[in-house]
Amino acid sequence: MKMNTLTLAVVLGLGSTSVIANTDVAELEQRINELEARLVKTEQVTEEANDQASSFEFHGYARAGLLINDNLNGATGTGPYMTAAGAIGAPIGRLGVEDDNYVEANLIHNRYLDDGSSARFHIMLADSVETNNEWTAEESQLNVRQVYSELANLRAFSDSEALSNATFWAGKRFDRANYDIHFLDSDIVFLSGTGAGVYDAQLSDDWKANFSIYGRDFGNIDSSSTDIENYIATMNNWVGNWQFMLSGMTASDNKELTQGSADKGFHALLAYHADSFYGAGEGFAKSGVLFGDGLGAELKGIGSNGLLTEDAQAVRVFTYGVTRFAENWRAAPSFMAEYSQDRFEKNDEFAWASVNLRLAQEFTENFEMVYEGSYQYMDLDNATDKASGSFYKATIAPTLKLSTSKGFFDRPELRFAVSYVDWSEDLNDYAVSLDTDAATMGDGGEVLFALQMETWF
Amino acid sequence: MKMNTLTLAVVLGLGSTSVIANTDVAELEQRINELEARLVKTEQVTEEANDQASSFEFHGYARAGLLINDNLNGATGTGPYMTAAGAIGAPIGRLGVEDDNYVEANLIHNRYLDDGSSARFHIMLADSVETNNEWTAEESQLNVRQVYSELANLRAFSDSEALSNATFWAGKRFDRANYDIHFLDSDIVFLSGTGAGVYDAQLSDDWKANFSIYGRDFGNIDSSSTDIENYIATMNNWVGNWQFMLSGMTASDNKELTQGSADKGFHALLAYHADSFYGAGEGFAKSGVLFGDGLGAELKGIGSNGLLTEDAQAVRVFTYGVTRFAENWRAAPSFMAEYSQDRFEKNDEFAWASVNLRLAQEFTENFEMVYEGSYQYMDLDNATDKASGSFYKATIAPTLKLSTSKGFFDRPELRFAVSYVDWSEDLNDYAVSLDTDAATMGDGGEVLFALQMETWF
Amino acid sequence: MKMNTLTLAVVLGLGSTSVIANTDVAELEQRINELEARLVKTEQVTEEANDQASSFEFHGYARAGLLINDNLNGATGTGPYMTAAGAIGAPIGRLGVEDDNYVEANLIHNRYLDDGSSARFHIMLADSVETNNEWTAEESQLNVRQVYSELANLRAFSDSEALSNATFWAGKRFDRANYDIHFLDSDIVFLSGTGAGVYDAQLSDDWKANFSIYGRDFGNIDSSSTDIENYIATMNNWVGNWQFMLSGMTASDNKELTQGSADKGFHALLAYHADSFYGAGEGFAKSGVLFGDGLGAELKGIGSNGLLTEDAQAVRVFTYGVTRFAENWRAAPSFMAEYSQDRFEKNDEFAWASVNLRLAQEFTENFEMVYEGSYQYMDLDNATDKASGSFYKATIAPTLKLSTSKGFFDRPELRFAVSYVDWSEDLNDYAVSLDTDAATMGDGGEVLFALQMETWF
Repeated sequence: MKMNTLTLAVVLGLGSTSVIANTDVAELEQRINELEARLVKTEQVTEEANDQASSFEFHGYARAGLLINDNLNGATGTGPYMTAAGAIGAPIGRLGVEDDNYVEANLIHNRYLDDGSSARFHIMLADSVETNNEWTAEESQLNVRQVYSELANLRAFSDSEALSNATFWAGKRFDRANYDIHFLDSDIVFLSGTGAGVYDAQLSDDWKANFSIYGRDFGNIDSSSTDIENYIATMNNWVGNWQFMLSGMTASDNKELTQGSADKGFHALLAYHADSFYGAGEGFAKSGVLFGDGLGAELKGIGSNGLLTEDAQAVRVFTYGVTRFAENWRAAPSFMAEYSQDRFEKNDEFAWASVNLRLAQEFTENFEMVYEGSYQYMDLDNATDKASGSFYKATIAPTLKLSTSKGFFDRPELRFAVSYVDWSEDLNDYAVSLDTDAATMGDGGEVLFALQMETWF
Repeated sequence: MKMNTLTLAVVLGLGSTSVIANTDVAELEQRINELEARLVKTEQVTEEANDQASSFEFHGYARAGLLINDNLNGATGTGPYMTAAGAIGAPIGRLGVEDDNYVEANLIHNRYLDDGSSARFHIMLADSVETNNEWTAEESQLNVRQVYSELANLRAFSDSEALSNATFWAGKRFDRANYDIHFLDSDIVFLSGTGAGVYDAQLSDDWKANFSIYGRDFGNIDSSSTDIENYIATMNNWVGNWQFMLSGMTASDNKELTQGSADKGFHALLAYHADSFYGAGEGFAKSGVLFGDGLGAELKGIGSNGLLTEDAQAVRVFTYGVTRFAENWRAAPSFMAEYSQDRFEKNDEFAWASVNLRLAQEFTENFEMVYEGSYQYMDLDNATDKASGSFYKATIAPTLKLSTSKGFFDRPELRFAVSYVDWSEDLNDYAVSLDTDAATMGDGGEVLFALQMETWF
Repeated sequence: MKMNTLTLAVVLGLGSTSVIANTDVAELEQRINELEARLVKTEQVTEEANDQASSFEFHGYARAGLLINDNLNGATGTGPYMTAAGAIGAPIGRLGVEDDNYVEANLIHNRYLDDGSSARFHIMLADSVETNNEWTAEESQLNVRQVYSELANLRAFSDSEALSNATFWAGKRFDRANYDIHFLDSDIVFLSGTGAGVYDAQLSDDWKANFSIYGRDFGNIDSSSTDIENYIATMNNWVGNWQFMLSGMTASDNKELTQGSADKGFHALLAYHADSFYGAGEGFAKSGVLFGDGLGAELKGIGSNGLLTEDAQAVRVFTYGVTRFAENWRAAPSFMAEYSQDRFEKNDEFAWASVNLRLAQEFTENFEMVYEGSYQYMDLDNATDKASGSFYKATIAPTLKLSTSKGFFDRPELRFAVSYVDWSEDLNDYAVSLDTDAATMGDGGEVLFALQMETWF
């Protein structure tokens, strides 16, 4: 009995414990119910917020700042295309010589369907002014540079090996596959205009290709003038690290607009995109050669120049890379050179080569010293006048940024820069253009001071 | 005893189980506590994200692409208002003839109060250029077309039957109640300008009305010129499916700006918004009649034309509908016709009628063939010259989109289009305007090729 | 045995209860597991949505509406700077006299690092047109007024007392520390231009300072004209409620651009920012004095005017405050006065004083009557002609807003306003400028009607 009583006591004790546990469990169940209800609501609101947030994207590029010459006045005529050869696309290192306040603002609308297909609408507003003042209505260049739509991963093509991951587009745009040598402010090719095309057609396991048709206009476009359009058909291929791009173009009646001008053209690019710094370290390197004929002889801005002659020919080579070569040092060498003949006139002949080295020395996570040396040789003969010689630039730029460890392409950067620029006397007052009011390099030997920001996102 | 031992064993067993359960419960309670804490935080972040996301909206409309004529050059002078009657607002079917790169970008800021009231700020940037090039600073038409604020569901009016759901606004805007025949690129009315008003005043159970005052300017507006303003007072009513809109307007001194011009006007619209395709199928249909007198005789752009005479009179009828008439076929017929007299000169007389049929044949969820046939008859007498005749257009357009099953108004669309346009010889070189440099239709019989995108969101 | 059976029964009963509880607990555990999994996902999505939402900000200011004169035409030449003294920066109360459709749209991109540092990119588009029409491409003033980047709370400076909370910036901007008397549409100082600087340097426990260099351009800036730049170095200090700002500036060669013009200048501001309405009630008050010499004699737009003479001197005082002086009444008095001499010509002499009182009488949460009385005395001698006299304005404005209880600075406001403006006859047709086509006040005695919205966010 004692035992039983004990048993009972234990049982009752346990029972009472169990009753408490049951109450606890019911309470917990109640709390879980509430949590579930709240989570359902939160998931819903989250999805809505996410949908709304992801339907819009804002991206941009901008540079702005002061550029002061050694007379304590605004520097004029400077920039990466400041040399006589700049008129035919020869860049020098950009650090510390850019004076424009330039901005690109991209507004993007995305639409996602549950089946995985999506649409993307993109507009880009851009502006470039030299004035330091803030009300720039008179100088404003504000304009819409891009307006296009894309359709991707369309369900109807899901069984097509070639098109299941393809992106279709139409409108006005910069080609998606353009890429540049940032340090020279020069695209390798800058294919752009109004048209349509398809990206990421999978032609075989290793072979991806883009196809596009772009139209461009020559001359001023208004209702009274002749409307000459240049149509460019492009095939851009990637096989492993190799890129091979072919473009043909035709511009009816362009011969009539300007005597001797070409009405068709051809353009080719062969490039290698290396995953390391020339096999010698971390980073990357890109190298290639471009060739153009007739309207295709404007090697960067494919099909953008209606003044090229039928016999125009140009060849360009480039290479650049980015690496880290010590704990706190980074380097980015670039090289670009071009030879062209019969470009604007029979027997004109232009040769130039640019070499540039940007170095960054990281002091802290937020501060680095950036150095740039730039050299350009040019030998220019516009069939009337000749000039040849060299351009030199050296720049040192203390720079603030969020994260120096993230390398050359982390932005924004706030920088102070001092540059010395000079060139051969032979180049003073020479211009490629035969226009009497064509801009020339003037005299060299100048120190430039810059206070600048540059960003992209 | 055995029993008791068993009992004890059972009890102890149960007890030990219960102890485990208790530990479990405590653990679960701990996890629930943590979940609750995390959920509170997540709810907070979600609310913030949602508030931030919903405070901003991006909406737009755009079309862009290439339009190529049969000489492989850019088409000029085309578009929905390309006929001689287009100068007085007569549209033809737009598919495949639009050459402009046009964009509207709307940036909207919402502010919601806990009491249910809200404010909405809206600006619209718009641009329209013909050039296919991407740097359009010289041709840019970029401008602010709308800038206005709205206040809705104000607490102070919550007891007012008429105003409890009303929206008040002021600024520059397109009237909220404007609607169009998309296929003709023609609004039924396009009331716009700078002013103030109220939407959704509930005058009785079945009767909703909008009231507004809009100002518009005639002539060039600068500090040296006379500043003629036209003030338009509008009442726009909905009773069931019926819409009845009345507008009166006055422009002091307009007679002095242009001799013989009206200084007041009257405009009326009666329309029926049907929920089915003329009672004959799914879809919708809208039909109506417009009448205008004096400054009100510009029937679409109410009060926008200061050159109308005192005696000007115009009447317009329209109807259009959208339906699906087979598993994979859709149709959208439109009709619009106008008669006007004493419009710009005593005894001028203009009559035109446009009929348009757009068909879509869905092949897959992402691909459809779109067809459009368009016809316009016009009989034009500007009191100096007369011309009459017909315009014809036929277009076929293979089209990509996200979801053909969503019908005519799902965007973006990427399309290739081929059109043939022609017209009566009598219309060649005729212009409604008496200006010597007025644009004319030129000669007909042209094939147009288009690569285009169109989107809205 | 009975007892034992009972015991057993109890035990079994309890056992069965316990078994249910265990099942419950397992179920609950399962539900908690699911909740945790869902919450993990929701937290992730929420964080992404929040990151995306917080990376973008849209802010703006806008006013738009109709301004009608008593001849039922558009009012011209009105605005806060409509008086003869307005040409030298003398404002009158703005309520009911602004005719422009003005908009500022700010697009901001934020980037946050986990270490607490952040970057902020800011562009401002702005436009100002007078026309009431909606397609304003011809009149458009759309331009980029600001484009700059900021870096804040940089990790590398976290050990620096002075810079740990500092913000560094470069680009084109309105200085962050500018502030205005809203009711007069006049900044106290409007420092702006292109440059670089640092905000919130903590010089001691009580002393915060900003340092900046701004460049501005004088004259038209294009490649052919002389490029005169004015460089302004500023130190802006806060000690408690006191603000002390010193600016020096230099513009090489400005003497050559305009004969007799200054090529350097000095500017100082001393202000007190009170946390109450002059110690007499809730609200705030700001008072101060400004002095300028040479190029610094343009007291508001520091360094923005290249036409000032070497001997130019100006002194300005201001005070304004905002308070609530009854349950439903608010008041905002403002005073600003300036004396300047040798400003544009030797021996010119300008004195003016503006006083303004805005009152708001709240009727409901959404409706208030706003009253404004404005007076300006001016005594103007441009060294050729003299004029002196007074300007008067009285305005009454029924106003709708979301929350009248939130005071003078809650927006949007939708308002109707009636104003009467008049001035001394002596001021008719007087202009500070000696240009023959300089705008003058014309004749006074006019009633103005306004329908307007104003917002900021």
